[in-house]
Amino acid sequence: MIKILLDAMGGDNAPQSTVQGACDALNADKEIYLILTGRKDDIEGELSKYKYDKSRLEIVDCSDVIDMNDIPTEAIKKKGSSLVSAYWMLKKQEDICALVTAGSTGATIVGGQLILGRIRGIKRPALCPAIPNSRGTFTLLCDCGANAECKPVMLCQFAVLASAYAQVGFGISSPKVGLLNNGTEEHKGDPLHQQTYKYLSEMKGINFIGNVEGRDIMMGECDVVVSDGFSGNIALKSLEGCGKLVSEVMKKEFKKNIGSKLGYLFARKTIKNMRAQLDFDRFGGALLLGLKKVVIKSHGSSKPQTIAASIANAAQIYRNGLVPAVEKLLSEVDLDALIPAEENQ
Amino acid sequence: MIKILLDAMGGDNAPQSTVQGACDALNADKEIYLILTGRKDDIEGELSKYKYDKSRLEIVDCSDVIDMNDIPTEAIKKKGSSLVSAYWMLKKQEDICALVTAGSTGATIVGGQLILGRIRGIKRPALCPAIPNSRGTFTLLCDCGANAECKPVMLCQFAVLASAYAQVGFGISSPKVGLLNNGTEEHKGDPLHQQTYKYLSEMKGINFIGNVEGRDIMMGECDVVVSDGFSGNIALKSLEGCGKLVSEVMKKEFKKNIGSKLGYLFARKTIKNMRAQLDFDRFGGALLLGLKKVVIKSHGSSKPQTIAASIANAAQIYRNGLVPAVEKLLSEVDLDALIPAEENQ
Repeated sequence: MIKILLDAMGGDNAPQSTVQGACDALNADKEIYLILTGRKDDIEGELSKYKYDKSRLEIVDCSDVIDMNDIPTEAIKKKGSSLVSAYWMLKKQEDICALVTAGSTGATIVGGQLILGRIRGIKRPALCPAIPNSRGTFTLLCDCGANAECKPVMLCQFAVLASAYAQVGFGISSPKVGLLNNGTEEHKGDPLHQQTYKYLSEMKGINFIGNVEGRDIMMGECDVVVSDGFSGNIALKSLEGCGKLVSEVMKKEFKKNIGSKLGYLFARKTIKNMRAQLDFDRFGGALLLGLKKVVIKSHGSSKPQTIAASIANAAQIYRNGLVPAVEKLLSEVDLDALIPAEENQ
Repeated sequence: MIKILLDAMGGDNAPQSTVQGACDALNADKEIYLILTGRKDDIEGELSKYKYDKSRLEIVDCSDVIDMNDIPTEAIKKKGSSLVSAYWMLKKQEDICALVTAGSTGATIVGGQLILGRIRGIKRPALCPAIPNSRGTFTLLCDCGANAECKPVMLCQFAVLASAYAQVGFGISSPKVGLLNNGTEEHKGDPLHQQTYKYLSEMKGINFIGNVEGRDIMMGECDVVVSDGFSGNIALKSLEGCGKLVSEVMKKEFKKNIGSKLGYLFARKTIKNMRAQLDFDRFGGALLLGLKKVVIKSHGSSKPQTIAASIANAAQIYRNGLVPAVEKLLSEVDLDALIPAEENQ
């Protein structure tokens, strides 16, 4: 049995989406056991709508909820909240493997650092979504927002974290790693990116292919794009904005007149395929990498299928040994030998 | 007559695209007079294919060409090249209003600074493309790559430059300005963005609406997005990558089988409309703002219609007085009164 916590109150559509997603996930994988944290009455009300294996679901009643406007460092003091309760259980109960939440990103990151704790040697956790690419697979973008200010050693560790994730999550034995920069030439970028380029080139165990540009996230040939959290966040949200505009323009244009509506009828299946390929939520949430257990941060606007995909991924990634893979790769790259002590704080 | 220089050898498809674009631009606007710099024989060979008003086109023979691999600071020493010759003519001949090039971005920026020169008081020129948005208009993104490392005063000036451009190029009297950041809250980002937020809030003459995220470039409500050149470059290229993937997926899906090909026949017009709305080249090139005259950097892969659009825009923006508008707004905002001398270098 793989025990996974679900913050049932996290996200814009909670607990409707979270509960429906939970039932779908239970029905899809008989090895999954779910613990839902949140307001018991609300959760039970939603649960009554679905069929699922009751022996593999329990509810931990939490009266409090973290609001999206709460300051993260304050939010995680709400001990009775669905997210903080979940983090404490994840930390204390050895048999619980993972946490899935669609709640506040800031609180999830702070809770991960301060309650659950980092893998030994990891300086900062990093958010890592899987973005659909032109090969029909996914590009991992790490970090995409947990760390607005970075040092070279942090970016080197993001390469380790995301490479381990690519190995266990996507079965890529030697994932190609690119550094997100404002041009592909070696000298490009500010001192942070120039120095990181140098270290990544020298790191054993990391298959570094050089600098990549924003367009390579969806078009390029690499499996992992390493980024400071500021640029990574801007890249991710730019891509999401473009995807949203495409979707809006498509809807508007096909509804324009009788001719375009007729066109839609004939092209419906093709359009559906297109949408599926460009769906950012298809893979579920972003991993919060670098923590002692698997934590997945699903989009605030997660639909039931996104929650279900996040739960399925959490199980799969735990099964394939994400944390041991990070620990193994981190010891192989031996950053302490590569980076001078004064830069390695 | 509005005299505009065209670097006929700049870009991947030069001189075919540049020459065809030049003829189209001449035919579309009787007030335009073009000076093409480049290899005379090659240009004349291309010109022979088109009808145009010969009295409004001249060629300045330049034997040398800047290669995309030349280091920018070395490239602009190639005095006999089509770009450097054009820059010197732009500087020295008062009756020439503007320059359009699809050549090396780096050489265009360095040449702009070192040959043509900046508007008095402007610290750095900035690249500013017009990106299609959900309102059916354009969002100006400034800077998107001329300055990898920025200070707050530079970002404040980018707000001035792009606001003036929005006024004269798009007729928006009080353009809404957002600051590209990793979240919308006031405290978001690194010290550069926190400090810039503070100054932008206090700047008279700038209609600052606060922090915006990557998704707001294409989705949001603002006319200008101010950005450091590093993040702006990553945002722009991420958007281009997403646009390209959408285009590829569309092609592939509609060619998949007989059913999807039939769908295409019925949806053709709608798909064409969609493509047009999402076309990054529709507006022509990016302005290199902050220089003493109008300079437009068109995409390296510019098609003839992109070159023609860039030339038409150069004429229009000159007519509407871009440089005087920048000077006026710069004196109104009075950055020297706002920013302490030690930060205002």
